[in-house]
Amino acid sequence: MEHSIRKEKIFSGRILDLERHTVSIQDGTTAFREGVRHPGAVAVVPFVDDKLLLVKQYRFPVQKFMLEIPAGKLDAGENPEDCARRELLEETGYVTRYLRKLTTIETSPGFSDEIIHIYLAEVERVQDPCPDEGEFVVPILIDSREAIRMIVDGQITDSKSISGILLAFAGRESDDDD
Amino acid sequence: MEHSIRKEKIFSGRILDLERHTVSIQDGTTAFREGVRHPGAVAVVPFVDDKLLLVKQYRFPVQKFMLEIPAGKLDAGENPEDCARRELLEETGYVTRYLRKLTTIETSPGFSDEIIHIYLAEVERVQDPCPDEGEFVVPILIDSREAIRMIVDGQITDSKSISGILLAFAGRESDDDD
Repeated sequence: MEHSIRKEKIFSGRILDLERHTVSIQDGTTAFREGVRHPGAVAVVPFVDDKLLLVKQYRFPVQKFMLEIPAGKLDAGENPEDCARRELLEETGYVTRYLRKLTTIETSPGFSDEIIHIYLAEVERVQDPCPDEGEFVVPILIDSREAIRMIVDGQITDSKSISGILLAFAGRESDDDD
Repeated sequence: MEHSIRKEKIFSGRILDLERHTVSIQDGTTAFREGVRHPGAVAVVPFVDDKLLLVKQYRFPVQKFMLEIPAGKLDAGENPEDCARRELLEETGYVTRYLRKLTTIETSPGFSDEIIHIYLAEVERVQDPCPDEGEFVVPILIDSREAIRMIVDGQITDSKSISGILLAFAGRESDDDD
């Protein structure tokens, strides 16, 4: 266990805050811990029959386009399942017919409190996407076995997407074992 | 594509820096992007025969103990494979007999440039652990099928660990198909 003795708020931003804590650690000494505070997010592994509905978007921090499962930040007080359905509809124009929680991941527990609730969904197209202002997201349908091959080959590299897609299949295989 | 027009350095810390950029976005307008700069890291999925060597440690940002694959930050200019062998030996006392790259993940591409190079390894115990000062890491051997069940059950929730462990098995099954 580590207990915070002193907290400094370093930055309060649009999508994250940054804090530095002085903490007492296991051996009785003190240390500094820098940590990002994030509101949390949801992500969805959306199946359209045997295809997966992914999204391609430019990610400024890593300076490249990435292929990911649809995801979005939680609004204050928002129910994660509602958020999953809302983000999927906004980003892709698909409505959720079936939704099941897969897990909740920590993305970078060494320096951030970001968690992402990941759901498996069956979805159906009902309208054109209506993304948030300043968000440019392209929906792409990919055969689910091809998506796994793209993970193994290093073409899908986002951690929530790898975790979610492989977990959707691991859970399925684990169910088969029972 | 998004181009940075103006960069503000907000914080320079021990394990991360924080920047805020004014960027020109796809529709020709401008927006702000907050981003964490991180030196990058390596992680290892270490097999001891049919068991996996995991580590348990307290993660201050998420205020809990977590079970993860061994990992560590890259030193400036350090070769990732050397870093993988070094961190594994320091944290667990196991030496690497075989090492193969699985992938490189982005952990939080929406607000951070952190990447983690993930390796599969076969390892063997040679000495007691010698972790860095202020680091309290407990090595734990777990049957590899049990580790997958702990991912499916939500007991292993760290994104690099889920990605690495499931990828080690997905790659194996993909090899079997060929």
